[in-house]
Amino acid sequence: MSVTAPAGFEAAGVAAGLKSTGKPDVAVVVNRGPRKVGAAVFTSNRAKANPIIWSQQVIADRVVEAVVLNSGGANCFTGSFGFQTTHQTAEKAAELLDISAGDVLVCSTGLIGTGDEVFRAKVLAGTEQAIATLSADGGDAAAQAIMTTDTVAKTAVVQGDGWTIGGMAKGAGMLAPGLATMLVVVTTDADLEPLEADAALRAATGTTFDRLDSDGCMSTNDQVTLLANGASGVKPDLDAFRSALRGLCQELAVKLQGDAEGASHDITIEVRGAVSEQDAVEVGRSVARNNLFKAAIFGNDPNWGRVLAAIGTTSAQFDPYDVDVWMNDVRVCTAGGPDRPREDVDLTPRATNLVIDLRSGEASATILTNDLTHDYVHENSAYAS
Amino acid sequence: MSVTAPAGFEAAGVAAGLKSTGKPDVAVVVNRGPRKVGAAVFTSNRAKANPIIWSQQVIADRVVEAVVLNSGGANCFTGSFGFQTTHQTAEKAAELLDISAGDVLVCSTGLIGTGDEVFRAKVLAGTEQAIATLSADGGDAAAQAIMTTDTVAKTAVVQGDGWTIGGMAKGAGMLAPGLATMLVVVTTDADLEPLEADAALRAATGTTFDRLDSDGCMSTNDQVTLLANGASGVKPDLDAFRSALRGLCQELAVKLQGDAEGASHDITIEVRGAVSEQDAVEVGRSVARNNLFKAAIFGNDPNWGRVLAAIGTTSAQFDPYDVDVWMNDVRVCTAGGPDRPREDVDLTPRATNLVIDLRSGEASATILTNDLTHDYVHENSAYAS
Repeated sequence: MSVTAPAGFEAAGVAAGLKSTGKPDVAVVVNRGPRKVGAAVFTSNRAKANPIIWSQQVIADRVVEAVVLNSGGANCFTGSFGFQTTHQTAEKAAELLDISAGDVLVCSTGLIGTGDEVFRAKVLAGTEQAIATLSADGGDAAAQAIMTTDTVAKTAVVQGDGWTIGGMAKGAGMLAPGLATMLVVVTTDADLEPLEADAALRAATGTTFDRLDSDGCMSTNDQVTLLANGASGVKPDLDAFRSALRGLCQELAVKLQGDAEGASHDITIEVRGAVSEQDAVEVGRSVARNNLFKAAIFGNDPNWGRVLAAIGTTSAQFDPYDVDVWMNDVRVCTAGGPDRPREDVDLTPRATNLVIDLRSGEASATILTNDLTHDYVHENSAYAS
Repeated sequence: MSVTAPAGFEAAGVAAGLKSTGKPDVAVVVNRGPRKVGAAVFTSNRAKANPIIWSQQVIADRVVEAVVLNSGGANCFTGSFGFQTTHQTAEKAAELLDISAGDVLVCSTGLIGTGDEVFRAKVLAGTEQAIATLSADGGDAAAQAIMTTDTVAKTAVVQGDGWTIGGMAKGAGMLAPGLATMLVVVTTDADLEPLEADAALRAATGTTFDRLDSDGCMSTNDQVTLLANGASGVKPDLDAFRSALRGLCQELAVKLQGDAEGASHDITIEVRGAVSEQDAVEVGRSVARNNLFKAAIFGNDPNWGRVLAAIGTTSAQFDPYDVDVWMNDVRVCTAGGPDRPREDVDLTPRATNLVIDLRSGEASATILTNDLTHDYVHENSAYAS
């Protein structure tokens, strides 16, 4: 059910011809109220796609009634013509839904530089078609329409005490933080104030999507949106809501990791014993972005030297000669020196655990990443995306 | 002739059994004077190998009489036993050469964590063997003995006005800056004061080796050393010397780029129109480290969108919508929008040119990198290194 699991939301996904495969490529999610609370986080990349520039204006008043999303073209670096396409998309949806264009978010994903007349015509026609087929069980169709190189549609639902959260996500590459790292729409029928929704979304994404770092490459189009309509009539316990929202975001983040382009290992990097959470994140990210380490994991090689070489480039507080490293629960390095032999480590399972204990403090953080594989190189060299 | 091209230097390279292939793996370079000026730059990785820790002490007084180098083991994260091995290596060389151990630099390269009793015995025996075969034409043998995954020995010689500079380098992966990024020994018979040598070396490496960024991975063992003995009796014009030294370092850097593990393209990233040189370097490096861009070049895909997505993550001063991009002399992007069609770009040659004009100032910088290939993944996953 994804985004239509909570009461008061409708969605649709249709094929508008943007994808050469003929698969669904335009989705619409509509909030039927009563409240129209919206919150969103965006890519921190300064190279922003037109839909991002548009949506950052729309979200300013924290009122959102609809989201139009397309795959098959990023509408990024397509000039003022491209921005007008985004604007016209919002106007088209607003006209058909009898709402204000200023309350319509637009998201696009696909190849940068794609956004010509043909693209515009298809997006506008697709928006019209999708709105004509909106339904209260259209969440799964919408999730399918935002897929790009994803191999599976990604959805999640969490039940609260009288309220529900639903979500859909697309993303299979270019996974790196910057608040958002993918297209995600999350809906809830809980009754939230705009600032409550905003704070809850930022807290949840900060420790979930923002700590998924598959290949260190930040996209131009990323957006995570939360729509809250209060249709349940329930004002949630805020701690419970925040916890549920974080759980849902983490579930979607793990699904994105599991579908990362060409990956053969899902690597969980847990950094312990840091002086601060920021230090722990910096250390984890340095390993997640080290091609030599990532290639070693692909080769099932527990090369802990590459871990130490990576973390040595950070400014985090620790002594490189007082660090312990575990791979899949085998301590391969103690106090910056060899411990158990590499033969003891079995890296054949897809799920891979790396634990780094900096032995300097009490803070910790976990980063999710993937290995560097032949298939990653193939997918990102053989196809323009 | 490499490091023995200038007068007053001797070198040797021998096989000591550190490499399983039986190829040469221990090199010694000796400065026969009259002056014993030394300068060196080291990896800025905080995870430093034992030879780095030792050599940073040796260089403090700017006097160096000999350098002992080994491949086949990095002697990094090998504990106090490993440090004693480095110390004993310097002591062994000093005893045989009748000099002070405090004037002997030690460099090691190979797998992190390698440095046991067998390693120590072979390094010490190799040092003795190499010193026994020192000769004034041993430069090429020394260059061969420091090779790891290098496919060719890398040497260069520049003639000045009455003086000569010679150099050797090893490096074929893990190429990233931090002052040094490889093992390099440069010799000259020019008559230099210690501070002149130090300043010339730092200036030369800062715009050559430090701007070679093949895979963004910083090593634990990198060192670039300059030995100056004044044997020519000529005090060089300092501008001429600095220019010649920079030229030699650039020649070696290009050779390292050309031999990068698994690479199929040598990519020159020229950033123009930056507000400062620092901005230009940051922008160039963000592209050099972007796996999506590097994979696209491997696939001969002129995907300029990935260039803009990469530079958008920097803090350099420019407007992403006012940037021009050329690939192999074809302007594919003007003012942040599409220009010439991608079909016009021929990326089949190994030498690849990317020009990014930020249109914001007068500063520029050039970064050298490589593409991300199947062979890179293979070399770094199938073999521990």
